[in-house]
Amino acid sequence: MIQFVVHTRDLNGVARLGTLTTPHGAIETPAFMPVGSLGAVKGIESENLQSLGYGLILNNAYHLYLRPGHEVVAAMGGLHRFTTWPGAILTDSGGFQVFSLSKLCKVTDEGVTFQSHLDGSLHHITPERAIEIQEALGADIMMAFDECVALPSSRERVEEALARTNRWAARCQAARRRTDQALFGIVQGGHDPELRKQAADGIVAMGFDGYAIGGLSVGEEKSVMYRMLDATVPHLPADHPHYLMGVGMPEDLVEGVARGIDMFDCVVPTRHGRTGCLFTSTGKISIKNAKYARDEQPIDPDCSCPVCARHSRAYLHHLFLVKEMLGVRLNTLHNLYYFAHLMRGIRAAIADGSFADFRAAFHARRVPHVEACVSGEREDRSEEVRL
Amino acid sequence: MIQFVVHTRDLNGVARLGTLTTPHGAIETPAFMPVGSLGAVKGIESENLQSLGYGLILNNAYHLYLRPGHEVVAAMGGLHRFTTWPGAILTDSGGFQVFSLSKLCKVTDEGVTFQSHLDGSLHHITPERAIEIQEALGADIMMAFDECVALPSSRERVEEALARTNRWAARCQAARRRTDQALFGIVQGGHDPELRKQAADGIVAMGFDGYAIGGLSVGEEKSVMYRMLDATVPHLPADHPHYLMGVGMPEDLVEGVARGIDMFDCVVPTRHGRTGCLFTSTGKISIKNAKYARDEQPIDPDCSCPVCARHSRAYLHHLFLVKEMLGVRLNTLHNLYYFAHLMRGIRAAIADGSFADFRAAFHARRVPHVEACVSGEREDRSEEVRL
Repeated sequence: MIQFVVHTRDLNGVARLGTLTTPHGAIETPAFMPVGSLGAVKGIESENLQSLGYGLILNNAYHLYLRPGHEVVAAMGGLHRFTTWPGAILTDSGGFQVFSLSKLCKVTDEGVTFQSHLDGSLHHITPERAIEIQEALGADIMMAFDECVALPSSRERVEEALARTNRWAARCQAARRRTDQALFGIVQGGHDPELRKQAADGIVAMGFDGYAIGGLSVGEEKSVMYRMLDATVPHLPADHPHYLMGVGMPEDLVEGVARGIDMFDCVVPTRHGRTGCLFTSTGKISIKNAKYARDEQPIDPDCSCPVCARHSRAYLHHLFLVKEMLGVRLNTLHNLYYFAHLMRGIRAAIADGSFADFRAAFHARRVPHVEACVSGEREDRSEEVRL
Repeated sequence: MIQFVVHTRDLNGVARLGTLTTPHGAIETPAFMPVGSLGAVKGIESENLQSLGYGLILNNAYHLYLRPGHEVVAAMGGLHRFTTWPGAILTDSGGFQVFSLSKLCKVTDEGVTFQSHLDGSLHHITPERAIEIQEALGADIMMAFDECVALPSSRERVEEALARTNRWAARCQAARRRTDQALFGIVQGGHDPELRKQAADGIVAMGFDGYAIGGLSVGEEKSVMYRMLDATVPHLPADHPHYLMGVGMPEDLVEGVARGIDMFDCVVPTRHGRTGCLFTSTGKISIKNAKYARDEQPIDPDCSCPVCARHSRAYLHHLFLVKEMLGVRLNTLHNLYYFAHLMRGIRAAIADGSFADFRAAFHARRVPHVEACVSGEREDRSEEVRL
């Protein structure tokens, strides 16, 4: 299963440097997980991810359940063998996608009935079924099946969903058969600090292998999200990994670590790459901007990635405008490097006790809103191709 | 400029093993050129092409003239610097695209007026302009600007077009300013052996750096195409490279070499990769076929490419069905490897005088029409993204 060790703490003990050891390798934390919804990080091969420094990725149980089907993946020997990704995998339980992507979603205490976003076919997922699917997929880390309410919602609605999420978490635990996969619980509770504490206390009492914070980065102000982290993380066991789901932008990673988060996932580097939005040490640029048509500079002169070592903004601008697939791939590689590099910087800063300086310098360097980029970093926390 | 040396001949002296030396490297011939219409072989990086064994690729002057514009490429230092492809480049003059892709194409002796297939804007290309564009692009090898008639056409129409093509060829020669780029003439003449000879005699009399055969693989029977090669190649200088444009399928490469061809280009490996049609030692398979859903074998158990070394048909089938970009890339890498490997086999066979055996074994191994694949290998001899 997994082991988590915290080596060093910084920022009054809140920011943590650790190692998460899985059956498929050890990952230094804080860590960012690229999203490979359908069993592949869009356009990127395993060896590219590894050479960028990634050892843990996320796959979406919802998408793989629909296509090719978890039984097919199981018959092919599980996700690692099927996709040939040699590193560790975490599967999202599908809760978020069921509520955000599917049609005609009907929730009862028993589970959720929904229509596939692909063909309208009817499906029924219970906590037990979510575990069965994830055990068939065979990731290193599974997630409990949770109810995600649209926010803002009434306190009653949020409370009801967190209570159900916690009851489902217990059923997920009881449903486990495999002993080689870890299971993380998910703390819901909307934007209410009291409900967040209540949700955390319930989940922690059940004893999971790790603890995730769900239902954030769904459109709220960043200050609200950060307040929710302040209201939740202190109630999580200090010796277990803390995972902030579906987050986020570079500043969210820095601020999440500053609040005790060890793991993140987000489609931002990959999806932004596809829309031509490229991260730099001072913020981001939109490569489709006409001013780059004859710009011989790399995306970021301060970046050491293989794309910046070789290609000009002018070439990437051209590839983007003509919708050439290579452009998407190069943009994605650059953005994935940026995220991996940011996490390396965060870890190095915690290691030598300078994370406060790192955080201040990070924010000071950023030029706000230089160029408008298409956002949409969190429509569905997955990398689905819309048909 | 370029140098061409024939080292060995086989098959009664017709099949040739040679070296084409360019300012950007030496290429062993017979050689196949992948097509990178817009300055990139779709989804594939330079280092991938090089490690697959390619040293010469084709870019389309027509597409690059429209986007980003040849002046932009020139301002960025030419195609090699703009695209960072370190190997040799041949640019198609644009003749074929003007006649096959553009709207409202009007030909006079002076040149062609046409509407862009992208936005309907009006453009005028003369032989002089085609050379100006190709000199701005800066490829190692330029092509003369030719008139491509739709086939079948009347003998009069074909004769008129070949006469114009030959007049334009002389104007292309006269228009050259740069001395570091080679220029190839193009032999037209439709499906008429006499006209092919007539076209070849005219072009050869002008003295080009190499000789191309155009206007084939446009829908005619393969036997017709092979007959036209038999009617043309003997009239080309034996000490210059012979290039069969826009061809072709693996069997066409083998049969082209058997008729004295040294160079080929075609979108087949890349375009077929995008449609899930994968080449194997016995023919081709369509990876979207349901029978591959749980097939753990590689595409071709006899293939040594990096994709076959690692991935199952089941995974590639899944990636294709969910339209995952990585699937297109892996399919393309496999197909490009297949073509490079085929050419290596052809060269090795000529080197040791066994090309007749190679050719017989190649055809004997092939299982005709195992699976229907989307064809379309030669709609426009370019890798344009249709908007």
